[in-house]
This record gives sequence, C-alpha cells and structure tokens, in this order.
Amino acid sequence: MLASIYDSVGALVGEGAERITFPVIAERAGVTPSTLYRRWDDVDALLEEVAVAALTREGESAPDTGSLEGDLTEWALTIAHDISRPERVRYLRAMVSARGDLVSSCPVTDRRHDQAREVVRRASERGEPAPTVDQVLDHVVAPLYHHVLFALDVDDAYARRLVADVLAMVR
Amino acid sequence: MLASIYDSVGALVGEGAERITFPVIAERAGVTPSTLYRRWDDVDALLEEVAVAALTREGESAPDTGSLEGDLTEWALTIAHDISRPERVRYLRAMVSARGDLVSSCPVTDRRHDQAREVVRRASERGEPAPTVDQVLDHVVAPLYHHVLFALDVDDAYARRLVADVLAMVR
Repeated sequence: MLASIYDSVGALVGEGAERITFPVIAERAGVTPSTLYRRWDDVDALLEEVAVAALTREGESAPDTGSLEGDLTEWALTIAHDISRPERVRYLRAMVSARGDLVSSCPVTDRRHDQAREVVRRASERGEPAPTVDQVLDHVVAPLYHHVLFALDVDDAYARRLVADVLAMVR
Repeated sequence: MLASIYDSVGALVGEGAERITFPVIAERAGVTPSTLYRRWDDVDALLEEVAVAALTREGESAPDTGSLEGDLTEWALTIAHDISRPERVRYLRAMVSARGDLVSSCPVTDRRHDQAREVVRRASERGEPAPTVDQVLDHVVAPLYHHVLFALDVDDAYARRLVADVLAMVR
C-alpha cells in the first residue's frame, strides 16, 4: 500500500499537478483519504517523505576511492547526475515550494550530511588535511542544488571545480 | 499600471495563492487580462520579473569598505538579512517552483554576478589575492540561498563563515 501511495505522489508531481491533496492522492492510490490522514500530519509531510525516498535512493553510501579528492569527486559527480534528472528536478522544486517554516533539520540534507561525514572521517584517518563536514555541504552540495533549482547548467566540469575549491580551502 | 500589477502579484504570492493566472492577477490589479497577455509571454515571466524587482531592490551596488574581506562580509550579511525575510522567502520559493526549463541566465543571479564582479575587481586593483566571480557566487551566495530555500537557519555567523571559507581558497 505504501508503494502505491508513493507511486501516486510521484506520478502527480511528475505530471506537474497543481493541487496535490490527500483526497487526490487517495483516489489515485486506491486508498481512503482517512488512511492518509492517519499516517501523515499533512500533505507536505507525505510529499517530503516521498521526495526523500526519491532523492536519496542512489548513492546511499559515500564512495571509497582511497583519497579525499577521489571520494569527493566521485560523490559530487553522482549527486550532479542524480539531481539534474528531470524527474528529480521536479521533486526538488516541489519540495522547496512545499517547505514552510524553518526546520531544524531536513531529511535529504541529513543523508548528504552522513555521506560527507564518512568521506571526511576517512580522510582524517589517512592523515589528509580535510575540510569540515559543513564546508563540504556548503561548498560542494549547496552550489549543485542551487544550480539545479535555479535552472542553471550543472555538468561534470562544474562538479569538479567545486571539489577543487573546497580542497583549496584546506591546502 | 505596472506598479499595480507588480503589487497584485506580490500580494497574491504573499497570500500563498495556489493558482496565480493572468485573469486572477488582472482582476486584482484592475486591468484587462489582455493587457497582461500582450506584455508578458506567460505568467512565469511576469512572476519572475516581479521576483527580481523584489529580490534586488536593496543592495543595488556592492559595498565598498576598502578591503575584500570587508566588502564580502558586508555584502554577505546584507544578502542574508534580505533573503531570509518571510516575504522574500515566499518570492524565492515561488520563483523556484515557476522555473521550468534550463535557463542560460537568471536575472536575480545576474544582479548578484555584477555585484560580485565589482567586489572582485576592486580587490584585484588593490593587489589583494581574490577569488573568481564564480567562486564568490558558488561559495557565498549559493549556500545562503540554499539554506533559505531548504528552510535551514541563516544567521550572521553563517554568512561570516562562508566569507572566511572563500577567502581561505585564495590564501
């Protein structure tokens, strides 16, 4: 049942549906609206849950190439490819426009946070000078998302330059 | 007339209106829909124009404090204050969700680009080692917008850290 709800939300977002409400999702998924009301506080919570599932399916664990530069490069390229796929862009936009008040943490960001922490931890263990986890998130991940959200171009060269920049901070 | 159209779009966005169409805007502004159809290709174009006007009203010219660190810090603080005001956040979100295909340039980004170029140019003239314009945009501006869009906290300390990071790239 959960898969059918997720699929329905995904389809509605993918179609660019203007109003995604519990009754609309319920009808598409073949469940009663009360099923949705019981499980999620509001549509935004469900939308975000689906977005998180869709946006973090790939690249669950951070790459382990043996060097900080290698790890960051491979990771940045994966994210760049991942989030610039048209259906992901729609998810990201839907997530941003659904986002209301200040949140203390964001599940998509949390996943990226865990991956960055892993990459930085391994670099430190190898004795490589490493940026902080926040620096990796602010200077590699944030600009990639920013470019995607503002419909600016994201290519491999861009991802590589961001990695070079964050490494230059600690050289 | 233009002011009344801009105000109406601003009010509709501010109210969180779900459907912002030419007829809806026209009714609010007291003009005929054809006035809008003649002037703008689509609602997104008008929405973006209003967003640009609203988002770039302040800080037209970049600060000139006599040092790169001073200029970047003052500029980053201005942007941080500016874009985290609730009505600006709503504009930014509306702009992102209205954004469709890949754009070669974005007016809001263009304005920031001009300001960054000015700050970098003055630093170079003073003989200070300076990041590139793209580095300033990617590592100071993008993370600020990213935090605002994802409803993460943006405070002065955060803006100052981003400036310290971009300066560390060229030290």
